[in-house]
Amino acid sequence: MLLQQTDIHQLMRSDMERVSARVAEAARVRYAGVSPFLEEIVQAGGKRLRPLLLLLAARAYQYDENVDTLITAAAGVELLHTASLVHDDTVDRAAIRRGKPTLNSVFDHGSVILIGDYLFAQSAMLAAATGSPRVVSIFASTLGAICDGQLMEMIEATDLDQTDQQYFDRIYGKTASLFAGAAEMGTVISGAPEDHIQALLSFGGDVGLAFQIVDDVLDLTGESSDLGKPAGNDLRQGTITLPVIYYLASNPPGAAGSQMIASIVAGTASDVEITAALDDIRSSGCVEKAFGEVERIVQRAKDRLRILPDITAREGLCEFAEMAIHRAS
Amino acid sequence: MLLQQTDIHQLMRSDMERVSARVAEAARVRYAGVSPFLEEIVQAGGKRLRPLLLLLAARAYQYDENVDTLITAAAGVELLHTASLVHDDTVDRAAIRRGKPTLNSVFDHGSVILIGDYLFAQSAMLAAATGSPRVVSIFASTLGAICDGQLMEMIEATDLDQTDQQYFDRIYGKTASLFAGAAEMGTVISGAPEDHIQALLSFGGDVGLAFQIVDDVLDLTGESSDLGKPAGNDLRQGTITLPVIYYLASNPPGAAGSQMIASIVAGTASDVEITAALDDIRSSGCVEKAFGEVERIVQRAKDRLRILPDITAREGLCEFAEMAIHRAS
Repeated sequence: MLLQQTDIHQLMRSDMERVSARVAEAARVRYAGVSPFLEEIVQAGGKRLRPLLLLLAARAYQYDENVDTLITAAAGVELLHTASLVHDDTVDRAAIRRGKPTLNSVFDHGSVILIGDYLFAQSAMLAAATGSPRVVSIFASTLGAICDGQLMEMIEATDLDQTDQQYFDRIYGKTASLFAGAAEMGTVISGAPEDHIQALLSFGGDVGLAFQIVDDVLDLTGESSDLGKPAGNDLRQGTITLPVIYYLASNPPGAAGSQMIASIVAGTASDVEITAALDDIRSSGCVEKAFGEVERIVQRAKDRLRILPDITAREGLCEFAEMAIHRAS
Repeated sequence: MLLQQTDIHQLMRSDMERVSARVAEAARVRYAGVSPFLEEIVQAGGKRLRPLLLLLAARAYQYDENVDTLITAAAGVELLHTASLVHDDTVDRAAIRRGKPTLNSVFDHGSVILIGDYLFAQSAMLAAATGSPRVVSIFASTLGAICDGQLMEMIEATDLDQTDQQYFDRIYGKTASLFAGAAEMGTVISGAPEDHIQALLSFGGDVGLAFQIVDDVLDLTGESSDLGKPAGNDLRQGTITLPVIYYLASNPPGAAGSQMIASIVAGTASDVEITAALDDIRSSGCVEKAFGEVERIVQRAKDRLRILPDITAREGLCEFAEMAIHRAS
């Protein structure tokens, strides 16, 4: 079915409210000590980009006929994301996310592991509740890709001689795979033709890559007060992101800039040295180069939408891509 | 199809080897630093009771026609169990399991969380690969039950005034639910009638309960060298199990025995006091009472099998029940 432009925002709002209600219901636990924290983490929820993408991708096909299943899958995708954040914060030992204390800073790490596992279980139950073997299979392989990306980050992210391809593989797993999976689930459930499914899956993956690059750049350039965490946090934790890879490429081993990055990653640099290094990276043109890459990827994402005949759906997805990369800037 | 007694062991052996091969394949990672440890934890593997139960439960129905799917599901069940052990050891901060160092004692806890998540993902992929929405749904709700049981253990296990019903609820979630789920998956895949599915699900749950009670009693009565961990480990960690619940019931609050348990749970008892308390529990008749409960549950489990017309299958499952409770004694 085709939708009028004026209906879209209203439709998305009411269905996204249903998604939020499903998420809240699935994350409810009967343990008084845990449930307020779980409610808070689920409600903090950011912009719920992934379930929104799932619904938007489905919109040009049999949407209304499948809306209950779409909402179930969208809630599953959001909870999978939340579960993965809970564990990721524990792995990173992050104390703050979105300006609020993480579960990690309130509970001992054993509890946080169990709470994350519990949310994984709930998201798996939502995926199973769609009754679609293909949706379940996308869910499971996306979870695999996320874990693989996180393992890759743990093992390779501190390498000074990593290539930008390693970086892209890592953020595809860690972040973009769930955007791709959300778009794939939405189109599969709404009965899109296979070539449309593939186009939207790739669109989702591209938007996810662009989103993560922007996030990584903002980590370097942003103010601590806006980020809700210290600026340069990734680098302080030894994680090398795209602008730093560009910076290292123009500061070969032995050069002062490169030696400074090595000492930050090794944890031996002082705060003054870190601040100076961040300034040098920011003024080196590497940030602009990374933003250039974001623009190129977003353009590629939009080009993939040409296969969709429904102009309204295309416009909605283009808006989504812009929103994803501008959400925090 | 009906199988002759003489065929059974050979059939199980060769199919269980296929299960082990699937498990090993699914747990393979391309990260040199992680893969030997993952291989070891997967190969240590104990008796693989859960996949064996899945296959045994399926045996009286369309087994051969569905053997590939059964093996896939059995491998998924075993990996789910392994993933859950990895996280559980981290929660418990256990350094030793089956006499070997846990991942937890080799890697930092962030890595162990990710490795556990990775194994969860692989088990979910195997469940999805069965292509059966009902199997996936059993998988997801079993994962939910396990997490719930572990949360319950974390929150309630140290309560001195807990009832034996709380204990049974907790071990059902933590342990028995996966035995029940394995039996349910096996019978669903092999096309058993619904009343047989329910009987075998309940049989699996009972065997799982009995198995966990035996495990908890052995933790109190066993020698450290046999257990591969210190005797009385649960109590030292503040976890109250069935024999201790019985002991507390005959030592009301204020009595010396009860005060001693309280101080062990609070972590203020000396090693000498703990040893004396363990001796007192062992000679109090509470261990015998717990074993009586095991016998009662195993008998109930066997009675549930009366619905099955296939005597060979019934005998195989009765053998399984005996093996499960005698495996470590």
